[in-house]
Amino acid sequence: MKITSSSNKVIKNLMKLKQKKGRDETNSYLVDGWHMVEEAMTAHLAKQIITTDESFMSDVDTLYVSKEVMAKLSFTKTPQPFMAVVSKKEDQLQLCERTLIFDGVQDPGNVGTMMRSACAFGFKQVIFSNDSCDLYNDKTLRSTQGAIYKLNTYRGDLQEIIPKLKQSEVKVIGSALRDALSIDQITTSDKMAFVMGNEGKGMKEETLALCDQALYIPISAMESLNVGVAAGIIMYTYRR
Amino acid sequence: MKITSSSNKVIKNLMKLKQKKGRDETNSYLVDGWHMVEEAMTAHLAKQIITTDESFMSDVDTLYVSKEVMAKLSFTKTPQPFMAVVSKKEDQLQLCERTLIFDGVQDPGNVGTMMRSACAFGFKQVIFSNDSCDLYNDKTLRSTQGAIYKLNTYRGDLQEIIPKLKQSEVKVIGSALRDALSIDQITTSDKMAFVMGNEGKGMKEETLALCDQALYIPISAMESLNVGVAAGIIMYTYRR
Repeated sequence: MKITSSSNKVIKNLMKLKQKKGRDETNSYLVDGWHMVEEAMTAHLAKQIITTDESFMSDVDTLYVSKEVMAKLSFTKTPQPFMAVVSKKEDQLQLCERTLIFDGVQDPGNVGTMMRSACAFGFKQVIFSNDSCDLYNDKTLRSTQGAIYKLNTYRGDLQEIIPKLKQSEVKVIGSALRDALSIDQITTSDKMAFVMGNEGKGMKEETLALCDQALYIPISAMESLNVGVAAGIIMYTYRR
Repeated sequence: MKITSSSNKVIKNLMKLKQKKGRDETNSYLVDGWHMVEEAMTAHLAKQIITTDESFMSDVDTLYVSKEVMAKLSFTKTPQPFMAVVSKKEDQLQLCERTLIFDGVQDPGNVGTMMRSACAFGFKQVIFSNDSCDLYNDKTLRSTQGAIYKLNTYRGDLQEIIPKLKQSEVKVIGSALRDALSIDQITTSDKMAFVMGNEGKGMKEETLALCDQALYIPISAMESLNVGVAAGIIMYTYRR
């Protein structure tokens, strides 16, 4: 059966997942495009596939919709034939070798790009401060290029999380523009966590105060690097 | 005198600078926000300042406009009190120590971010293939964070440009995902140029064929890095 009306109740419920409230209430989110759908299936997190392709067969519950309905559901101007409803993982805080921490990072593209780099450089966990952008925002998801399914993600109060990490011998390194050690002066440890700050304001003073050390990347002529670029260089340097 | 109507001829002419055609015809472009305006003035490239601030005084020709007119001219939803008309520099191809080359890079944000990193890591020149995105697009300009004024920029056919660079002892290094040397296996030279490819397709085969060598950044779990992140790591590694 194919749904051809966007006023259908099933579609109306799916539309709610485009808002944070709807995602929080159902512990699930929407992804767009075959690549993200395929990765969600591989990670056994796809709850329902939505497609305009009537010949598509899957073990996962599949909803067939018209192109008009897909255009309504899709986040992009040129809808692809596949979307999926994906379950949020219920992740706990882990004490892994490499963790990336966001302290108020706002831009979904930056967050997604950093998750993609984290995954590529052997980082296993990304921690979001409560004021960092929503992980399940469609722009964040798209920029992760599937890294979301491969990383342990955790959200909470850094004033509680960072001390917990430090108690378990995780070395927590902040990032700054000055009054810090140059990126190559940090001693590598088995367990390390790196904190990236807000695009405009950098890390919060109170977060920086909790870190074991802070690093900066030596640059000239410009005031700062894009936060995603800075994180990429840091994670490349301390990759696993 | 303050212009209060967007149908004023002066404003209509300024509006033409929002299109590539208008920028090409006048060899000038619009920038938005005090930071970009200030940097343009410092670089002696600001032809005209546009402002809602009637108390603003400058040696540069200044056009006073109403908030409504500024809202029309601005690229952002929340217009700032300053914009400027900036002259394109008439740059020639240079043989500097470090050059970044774009081979079909499409996303304005990526291009701007890479120019920002280039400047920060002591690169002096950025070369655009003819099919790379427009440098004077407002999103590109915003992402450069002023780096546009500090870099030599040149646009043309890479099939002509790369051989010229090589004839003058510039070592030209392509980027690839495989069949290349690891980033740390490249010998540093006095003059180097690094080529970054299109977001989806990477470098063109014919461009890669012209390079002295190609490098890749070793990653795991993901297919690739964001091009801006990859360029950041490469330029950091071979910074001046």
